[in-house]
Amino acid sequence: MPRILFAATEDDWHDYRHCLPKALQDKGLHAELIPYHEGLDPALVEYIVYAPAGPLQDFSPYTKARAVLSLWAGVEKIVGNTTLTQPLCRMVDEGLEKGMVEWVLGHVMHHHLGLGFFGAHQDGVWRNDRAAPLASDRKVTVLGLGALGQACARMLAQVGFDVTGWSRSARALDGLTCLHGEAGLTQALSSAEVLVTILPQTPETTNLLDAARLALLPEGAVILNPGRGTVLVDDALLAALDAGQIGHAVLDVFRQEPLPEAHPFWAHPRVTVTPHIAAATRPETASKMVAENIARAEAGQPLLHQVNRTRGY
Amino acid sequence: MPRILFAATEDDWHDYRHCLPKALQDKGLHAELIPYHEGLDPALVEYIVYAPAGPLQDFSPYTKARAVLSLWAGVEKIVGNTTLTQPLCRMVDEGLEKGMVEWVLGHVMHHHLGLGFFGAHQDGVWRNDRAAPLASDRKVTVLGLGALGQACARMLAQVGFDVTGWSRSARALDGLTCLHGEAGLTQALSSAEVLVTILPQTPETTNLLDAARLALLPEGAVILNPGRGTVLVDDALLAALDAGQIGHAVLDVFRQEPLPEAHPFWAHPRVTVTPHIAAATRPETASKMVAENIARAEAGQPLLHQVNRTRGY
Repeated sequence: MPRILFAATEDDWHDYRHCLPKALQDKGLHAELIPYHEGLDPALVEYIVYAPAGPLQDFSPYTKARAVLSLWAGVEKIVGNTTLTQPLCRMVDEGLEKGMVEWVLGHVMHHHLGLGFFGAHQDGVWRNDRAAPLASDRKVTVLGLGALGQACARMLAQVGFDVTGWSRSARALDGLTCLHGEAGLTQALSSAEVLVTILPQTPETTNLLDAARLALLPEGAVILNPGRGTVLVDDALLAALDAGQIGHAVLDVFRQEPLPEAHPFWAHPRVTVTPHIAAATRPETASKMVAENIARAEAGQPLLHQVNRTRGY
Repeated sequence: MPRILFAATEDDWHDYRHCLPKALQDKGLHAELIPYHEGLDPALVEYIVYAPAGPLQDFSPYTKARAVLSLWAGVEKIVGNTTLTQPLCRMVDEGLEKGMVEWVLGHVMHHHLGLGFFGAHQDGVWRNDRAAPLASDRKVTVLGLGALGQACARMLAQVGFDVTGWSRSARALDGLTCLHGEAGLTQALSSAEVLVTILPQTPETTNLLDAARLALLPEGAVILNPGRGTVLVDDALLAALDAGQIGHAVLDVFRQEPLPEAHPFWAHPRVTVTPHIAAATRPETASKMVAENIARAEAGQPLLHQVNRTRGY
């Protein structure tokens, strides 16, 4: 009977205390799920379900732990922990991917249709010359073609948008124009009426969208960032918004979260802040993923979504 | 060389004067396109491209006209004209259908994700417990399963929504729960978190959504009406909005258009007015449809999208 340590926040425990045992049972696993507490013997723990916001920071006493299963999709707060030498898996949650696709689609549609304009002009004036162009005449660029970026790009293409995807290394995806590398980035940015950034946080993506790269966007472009806050240089974005070169930014992720109340993003008329909700991990579907990986480890099969420490994700 | 009378508004002429001749030429038709003017000999006209907002109201002198080709999707302002005995075709424009699908999808996503809430709460408070449920947990009902209603229902289902379609007579459509008739309407309304009405204007659909039927909707339901204004009883809708039983209404069509400046819809905090832009006919794609039907008539083939006068659409 494997012993599984649940080392996340108390809120997480509240969310997972019922659905994680159920998911383990559904996989035929007779496991003991132990919430983190003082006095626990680390040597008894075989699996660690983990969120970096929780109490566990030193993994070195967990000598028998066969895997650390993150509840978070992003692992940039975990990979730097040198005490963590066990296999680490990031969360790839079907519910998270769907939520991300819906957030991106909703915000792209909002700007495509000019819903903000109509919402702000309920003034009795009949402006029927303001119909939007068709999606096929709207260029959308998605930066990052991992599982989430691909899912978003495909959905946008299905709705009819003229979608370009960009990734660091070359990718070929059906029905999408795929660009890569530095030259590809210049091209991908310069056509983007709407830019969606879904890049992981790595040294290469940090500050990727600085003043010079933001200046490549067509005038009035809209930026959606449901990926990682470090991709955008905050001051460069604010300057481009003030100048009107960027028409609007919808930001779901930030360098510091919660975004401090005094941060200029909150008050800027061209910024919409959403509180890191684009890709919410959903306990029911995430529990299934955790159970799947424990079942794999128990059966001696390779783990899913194991993090490559060199690459950082 | 067939003579085609263009009997619509001056604005329409401005929009079509280049793309309609091009579409005719692309079909191999050598036709003469004549804008409506006083002194024109009706007996020379073989086809009439028509919009009811234009100058032509009496069709009886057009004894040689082989078809009246409406530029409008809705023909309720035309079918009552007893002088019009020629075959009448309504506009089925690929661009119009795409535009309608995009308008519906955008407004459904807006309410699904609570974008209005986030837009109105840029106040420095980090409300990360406000993530939307997944689309699969959101029930959307589409009233009307003609070409436009079907296209919208299919797109919503593709995005992941739990979609129910309703039509007067029974339909079976892949991947959609289809209901019909009076009993089906009660069921379709009582589950609709979001209700989309895309019904044609006929005696049966006029005032369909009265106080009794609106009361069937779940509390806080959102109504989108890109179909016809007569489907909704304005006062009943306003009362249901005031009571909070309906959460929001997005209305693109009205009993009187342009919607008068003094109409309470403009100022109501729970109503968003859009100025009949959901299904804009696009001159380029509509011209192709007109040319296709003239080519068919010239070749002795049946016309597309001919209106059934008894049914009214």
